[in-house]
Amino acid sequence: MRVSVVGAQGRMGSHVVAAVEAAEDMQLALQVDSSDDLTQVSPENTDVAVDFTVPDVTLDNVLTLIKQGVNVVVGTTGWNDDKLAQVREALAQAPRKDQAVFIAPNFAISAVLADYFAGIAAPYFESAEVIEAHHPNKLDAPSGTAVHTAHTIAQARRQADCAPMPDATVGNEPSRGDVVDGVHVHAVRLRGLNAHEEILLGNPGEQMIIRSDCFDRASFMPGVLLACRKVGEHPGLTVGLDQFLDL
Amino acid sequence: MRVSVVGAQGRMGSHVVAAVEAAEDMQLALQVDSSDDLTQVSPENTDVAVDFTVPDVTLDNVLTLIKQGVNVVVGTTGWNDDKLAQVREALAQAPRKDQAVFIAPNFAISAVLADYFAGIAAPYFESAEVIEAHHPNKLDAPSGTAVHTAHTIAQARRQADCAPMPDATVGNEPSRGDVVDGVHVHAVRLRGLNAHEEILLGNPGEQMIIRSDCFDRASFMPGVLLACRKVGEHPGLTVGLDQFLDL
Amino acid sequence: MRVSVVGAQGRMGSHVVAAVEAAEDMQLALQVDSSDDLTQVSPENTDVAVDFTVPDVTLDNVLTLIKQGVNVVVGTTGWNDDKLAQVREALAQAPRKDQAVFIAPNFAISAVLADYFAGIAAPYFESAEVIEAHHPNKLDAPSGTAVHTAHTIAQARRQADCAPMPDATVGNEPSRGDVVDGVHVHAVRLRGLNAHEEILLGNPGEQMIIRSDCFDRASFMPGVLLACRKVGEHPGLTVGLDQFLDL
Amino acid sequence: MRVSVVGAQGRMGSHVVAAVEAAEDMQLALQVDSSDDLTQVSPENTDVAVDFTVPDVTLDNVLTLIKQGVNVVVGTTGWNDDKLAQVREALAQAPRKDQAVFIAPNFAISAVLADYFAGIAAPYFESAEVIEAHHPNKLDAPSGTAVHTAHTIAQARRQADCAPMPDATVGNEPSRGDVVDGVHVHAVRLRGLNAHEEILLGNPGEQMIIRSDCFDRASFMPGVLLACRKVGEHPGLTVGLDQFLDL
Repeated sequence: MRVSVVGAQGRMGSHVVAAVEAAEDMQLALQVDSSDDLTQVSPENTDVAVDFTVPDVTLDNVLTLIKQGVNVVVGTTGWNDDKLAQVREALAQAPRKDQAVFIAPNFAISAVLADYFAGIAAPYFESAEVIEAHHPNKLDAPSGTAVHTAHTIAQARRQADCAPMPDATVGNEPSRGDVVDGVHVHAVRLRGLNAHEEILLGNPGEQMIIRSDCFDRASFMPGVLLACRKVGEHPGLTVGLDQFLDL
Repeated sequence: MRVSVVGAQGRMGSHVVAAVEAAEDMQLALQVDSSDDLTQVSPENTDVAVDFTVPDVTLDNVLTLIKQGVNVVVGTTGWNDDKLAQVREALAQAPRKDQAVFIAPNFAISAVLADYFAGIAAPYFESAEVIEAHHPNKLDAPSGTAVHTAHTIAQARRQADCAPMPDATVGNEPSRGDVVDGVHVHAVRLRGLNAHEEILLGNPGEQMIIRSDCFDRASFMPGVLLACRKVGEHPGLTVGLDQFLDL
Repeated sequence: MRVSVVGAQGRMGSHVVAAVEAAEDMQLALQVDSSDDLTQVSPENTDVAVDFTVPDVTLDNVLTLIKQGVNVVVGTTGWNDDKLAQVREALAQAPRKDQAVFIAPNFAISAVLADYFAGIAAPYFESAEVIEAHHPNKLDAPSGTAVHTAHTIAQARRQADCAPMPDATVGNEPSRGDVVDGVHVHAVRLRGLNAHEEILLGNPGEQMIIRSDCFDRASFMPGVLLACRKVGEHPGLTVGLDQFLDL
Repeated sequence: MRVSVVGAQGRMGSHVVAAVEAAEDMQLALQVDSSDDLTQVSPENTDVAVDFTVPDVTLDNVLTLIKQGVNVVVGTTGWNDDKLAQVREALAQAPRKDQAVFIAPNFAISAVLADYFAGIAAPYFESAEVIEAHHPNKLDAPSGTAVHTAHTIAQARRQADCAPMPDATVGNEPSRGDVVDGVHVHAVRLRGLNAHEEILLGNPGEQMIIRSDCFDRASFMPGVLLACRKVGEHPGLTVGLDQFLDL
């Protein structure tokens, strides 16, 4: 499998280059950066192109790569419904009928699985809360991943007609954190950490903890490689790494 | 739902009595102990009988209850293939065609889910180890639950053709614990703990932790009540609480 | 050592009775409850009286026991500066010159040590946050213990002239929890838990976690017995179990 | 403070160079590697020299630097009593009377504090076990740090005349791990981890956990900088970072 990397000199891109070079079943094709011509990437040299650039240019990159006839794996953030619609439209008019684009907001397998497991487990417990912890340079709180997990928990509990979670706390105490879709979410900011999420579930006499630790960018590489291997089997647009895991 | 408890004065049985009394959709029918006549329990007074007695008598109890025509939920341990075969045979000749018996080695929902999640996650990680921790009065090590989880992990990895786990440790160091089906299992014995299991999974730059804490016998009650509610929908013999969860 | 228990039928008192009976170096003297005459307790039958009653009566109990000439260990809450002053005054006029009273807000050794360790460690780390977790019937949040630990951390950092903790979070996000004396404090409420505290400390590439888990009231008994053994060596009024540990 | 780095191009040395450059109160003096002349380092250009080289050459480096009249901080491993004696002798004949050498087997403040706290806490608990976890390329198990902590716990318990730890495990089960000075030590090897240690302490109804996580080499830098700042205040040979913390 020949993999080209778009944004190859970026923080994530350089990790992808190294990961592709280390993978026995992959071959590093082209390394493309903002000053390079993206139309070099073509079926002659590339099976899958990986885009880790910036929100401003990623849509144009993907549209160009579709026209070039190669499959695309995208890790750049900033996608919305409108942009996704443009990708779907471009795919409908793509050179190959089975052409595929895959976009994921989070490539860490542990984080994707934690979210999935939280949804399965939540209806079986009376209580559920989410604690996320990140490096102190992070601007937003709580993390998008924690917000997603809170919605996953809430939706699973609604579908199962769960009773409201017990909480005798008097007043709206700030220590109880944010409440996202009925689920308490706490955000820790600590020097030395990177990106971590813990889901706590409780029943009488019993606790379940599901935890994901992403210590550095290397944590995204198994998910990126997995996406490169699987994207060809899923023509059209796919969003979310959970779609490529056998869940 | 009318629930009778066999072994009602035992350590687990007394918890079941309390849990049934507290459940809004249940009614405590008979409390039976070793000096009582088990044939009091019948469809006139009981929908489900729960047996928490001792390995020596539980088979006879179950066979009697089948003849009496009531469904049975069993938490007593010590079952083997021969005993299970006798239960199946008795069910084939039971008064009611849809009669049901349910037997579980572990009623803690967190432990059952942890084992299930470990099986799903294991193929996606390079490394997996199990740490179980119990009170220091426990005679055996590692726990049956940890051994079961090690097999679950090993089987999932075999089916996915995973590479062997990395481990450069020189020699057979005792600190590396037991190796069950290729999975390292560690057992901690600590005053104050009850029954705990932690599954650690690792990839480059990434860790996933799945943890179950059973602080006391109350932790088994949600599983027992769930089994009472579900057993009637599963005629015949069912083994393992995972069968009654929507997994 | 002869120990009498005041409030012997209460939730904590009954645990103290059992713990004293199980201690090889102790003898259970009198069990006193609200309907009993407290002046039965005297040096003829008692070396130490333990009071686990209610805030409304504990001051009167202690003043009476001082007059009776016995040492006192108090676990009842609700003390303030005025009440403590009355105890000191009574001790000054006590029958014995070396008479001793010990009052502790928390008898869990792990909680007392966690607070002490947090104070030592805090100046060596850039970041520190506190997460406490309790059963969902608790009315207040955060716990008094977590508030105390936040102050311990803040004071230690002030004395060491530490720089402010790094935190780039934009705005006053509720997920960041309460801020007690400059330290972020998070409160989890989860069915199945009892009383837990975790202190997280972070430096570049490094994290330290100090954690106390009190699973049930038994967790207070080692501290109560320790206090009974030590109170006689500390004439006058002593407040806080840390005073009796060799720290 | 002018700091020279010996072994500046090595894995640790290059981190020290970066850390010194980033420290406001420090100035990077010389960067010396194996092909460079170590006698360039002198009081004219250097207040403290930091040696992160290899066991074979570190003793010679330190002896040379003592003769040169500069203070030395050493992070290279492989020291024994004989080598330490040679350092002491050289210091006795050093150009400056107040000359100082500091050697530490572990510069991670969290690991040093964890060991120290374990020694304080151990006598107050019935049970204590150590779990260390490292990357799977590590050759030895258990880690030197975990062995040190086991000895710290054992010695503290001996001094306090503690009863043996409770453990009903029948037979010498491998899952119970290694037994170092009477303390059970478990070693986990997991891809994605770096160097982690957890000390578990248990009493009836209560657990205490002290944990150190070193995610990468950056975790040693606060300890190295601390040693550079403190070494001048401690003439002679000092071993162990705990000597420079206000414990």
